[in-house]
Amino acid sequence: MGTVERAGDDHTSEVESGEEEEIVGGGELAHHLMKSGITRNEMLAALTNRIHVETMASLPPNVRRRIRALRTLQKEFVDIEAKFYSEVHALECKYEKLYKPLFEKRAHIVNGGYEPNDEECLNPWRDETEEEELARAVQGAAITDGTEEKKPAEEKPAEPPMDPNVKGIPDFWYTIFKNVSMLCEMMQEHDEPILKCLQDIKVQMHEDPIGFTLEFHFAPNDYFTNTILTKEYSMKCKPDEENPLEFEGPEIYSCKGCDINWKKGKNVTVKTIKKKQKHKSRGSVRTVTKSVQADSFFNFFSPPNMPDDPNSTLASDIQALLTADFEIGHYIRERVVSRAVLLYTGEGLDDDDDDDYEEEEDSYFDEDSGTEEVSDAED
Amino acid sequence: MGTVERAGDDHTSEVESGEEEEIVGGGELAHHLMKSGITRNEMLAALTNRIHVETMASLPPNVRRRIRALRTLQKEFVDIEAKFYSEVHALECKYEKLYKPLFEKRAHIVNGGYEPNDEECLNPWRDETEEEELARAVQGAAITDGTEEKKPAEEKPAEPPMDPNVKGIPDFWYTIFKNVSMLCEMMQEHDEPILKCLQDIKVQMHEDPIGFTLEFHFAPNDYFTNTILTKEYSMKCKPDEENPLEFEGPEIYSCKGCDINWKKGKNVTVKTIKKKQKHKSRGSVRTVTKSVQADSFFNFFSPPNMPDDPNSTLASDIQALLTADFEIGHYIRERVVSRAVLLYTGEGLDDDDDDDYEEEEDSYFDEDSGTEEVSDAED
Repeated sequence: MGTVERAGDDHTSEVESGEEEEIVGGGELAHHLMKSGITRNEMLAALTNRIHVETMASLPPNVRRRIRALRTLQKEFVDIEAKFYSEVHALECKYEKLYKPLFEKRAHIVNGGYEPNDEECLNPWRDETEEEELARAVQGAAITDGTEEKKPAEEKPAEPPMDPNVKGIPDFWYTIFKNVSMLCEMMQEHDEPILKCLQDIKVQMHEDPIGFTLEFHFAPNDYFTNTILTKEYSMKCKPDEENPLEFEGPEIYSCKGCDINWKKGKNVTVKTIKKKQKHKSRGSVRTVTKSVQADSFFNFFSPPNMPDDPNSTLASDIQALLTADFEIGHYIRERVVSRAVLLYTGEGLDDDDDDDYEEEEDSYFDEDSGTEEVSDAED
Repeated sequence: MGTVERAGDDHTSEVESGEEEEIVGGGELAHHLMKSGITRNEMLAALTNRIHVETMASLPPNVRRRIRALRTLQKEFVDIEAKFYSEVHALECKYEKLYKPLFEKRAHIVNGGYEPNDEECLNPWRDETEEEELARAVQGAAITDGTEEKKPAEEKPAEPPMDPNVKGIPDFWYTIFKNVSMLCEMMQEHDEPILKCLQDIKVQMHEDPIGFTLEFHFAPNDYFTNTILTKEYSMKCKPDEENPLEFEGPEIYSCKGCDINWKKGKNVTVKTIKKKQKHKSRGSVRTVTKSVQADSFFNFFSPPNMPDDPNSTLASDIQALLTADFEIGHYIRERVVSRAVLLYTGEGLDDDDDDDYEEEEDSYFDEDSGTEEVSDAED
């Protein structure tokens, strides 16, 4: 009496027999619910929350009543927790200001505007001699990855010659894009020369309403006239009215890109396709051209808008794309901007950079447009 | 000049050809380093940081120097970030006090010390009628999981009878242990009757030095005389002196269990094994008994101590066990205590509860002791 195990299956046996049991039980439940005339949506909800519903159903009404009282307390908990997270966000805004001078100095060094003095180049916690030695050893090793014949180590110089013309740290941000798989997957071959002009990524925090803007600063280049491309993320830190107990802290809920002023013929986010059409009765052939979206990192600045009908299939596709976009925005803010040097050298690349993000979308649309000929990119 | 791509492999081709290339390049590097007379530890470090070392090695010395300046800035960043996390911990301590009255009221309801009034049982954001309807439908469905014959729905009562003798919410915490896979995996069959006596889990935050204590409150029971079992976690929020740039926020670094005063013959964490020994020359057989550790959730209160030599094989085994232990402690504090009702009903069980923690250790030692006969548990 009063235990809430699921009818006839203790946890251990369920783990052992796995999915099959789920199908048997779920199928019976579905069958019964359909006979009861419950709608499809209600049935889906019932199947998803099978444990929940079965647990509740097996309990006497006075116990169910007490569980509702615990949910009321849980609602009070998330309301207080939301205030905690708001205070944390305010702290983040405060510290962003303290980090700013460090990031500005970093940008100056990276772009050759400032040459650090000897004291600034000391890393007392590191064993520099060991690193130098290993660097020379690797140089000498003439690693060819098995594709070229190995030359005797003596022919190679001990280290690259000092080049006084190298300004700052060339290709700093581009190298980070190459190293971090989440970013690398978004980058297409035609994006690479443009991203070599990326000079800085900055975060501007917004305090009320909460959110942040990512600023991508570019050197003057042959592709577009903008010097800064922006992506703005809006966040909320309030339990959802319909599902307050699901609250787990601040969440990005929308984002806004920016217009890129592409120079003529340089827009890598569109491609022109030529399509041959045959006249139905006369049999004559004509060629039409059509612009379609091309895969590119720069689609990041044109996120899709949510359609008017939030229950359509299109809406759920777009929601999935936006969820991936929010993860990227969060990742750039949390990891890339604050730890750039470690992603450049590889010291700060963790397993996440190899595994977790492999299935991200790297373009917003995958148009199936019956392409027959594809010409070069045109504006 | 100045680019830092890894020799001969752009990122895309590496992803395609995968592990094989890694072995070729790594093997050559290892071979060269061994010839250079570099020690095994240095070689391991070099292989692990292959990207890092190769990146550095391909750069002119003036660029390497600027990267060291960026590391100095990164060190300044983590020193400020550590202060941010200390402020967040102080906020957590402040909010823990605000949550406390809610958790105390929860404990009263769960253990039957307080009967909530009607207003406290309203969940206005929920569609209660739908839930009640579904609960009745599930009741009627007589789900048998295919093991029993299905009886006509009419024979079953519409819902369980009101039982005025049921106090509070029976088996509340025990059910959470069953539902949350990380906890379920630690729980052995002989632990279950004891965990049915678990009445509450509380968190006590420590502000300086930072950390927290988990308190497991038990009803008087037949197994031990303690009413509270404790597990204390010590945390640090300071960049490591040798690897300051790896800092990512507060970390648990040690934990302390408590003595359990087991009643005679009730200690489930040891088992007595009987072993037959044959005399080498005389051939006579004698039986010896030996106590060994048994798998049990209650080993959670006797975590291993780090051995004196931190570089031994034993030390790295123990470190792995402690890492798993810290994750469990963190999880109980972050998820279980704050969202208990949602784990009880199943509403708050997410994918993590099914996948992420499946490979946790569920005992501290797996003794290989040549057991021949195993008797019942004895103190």
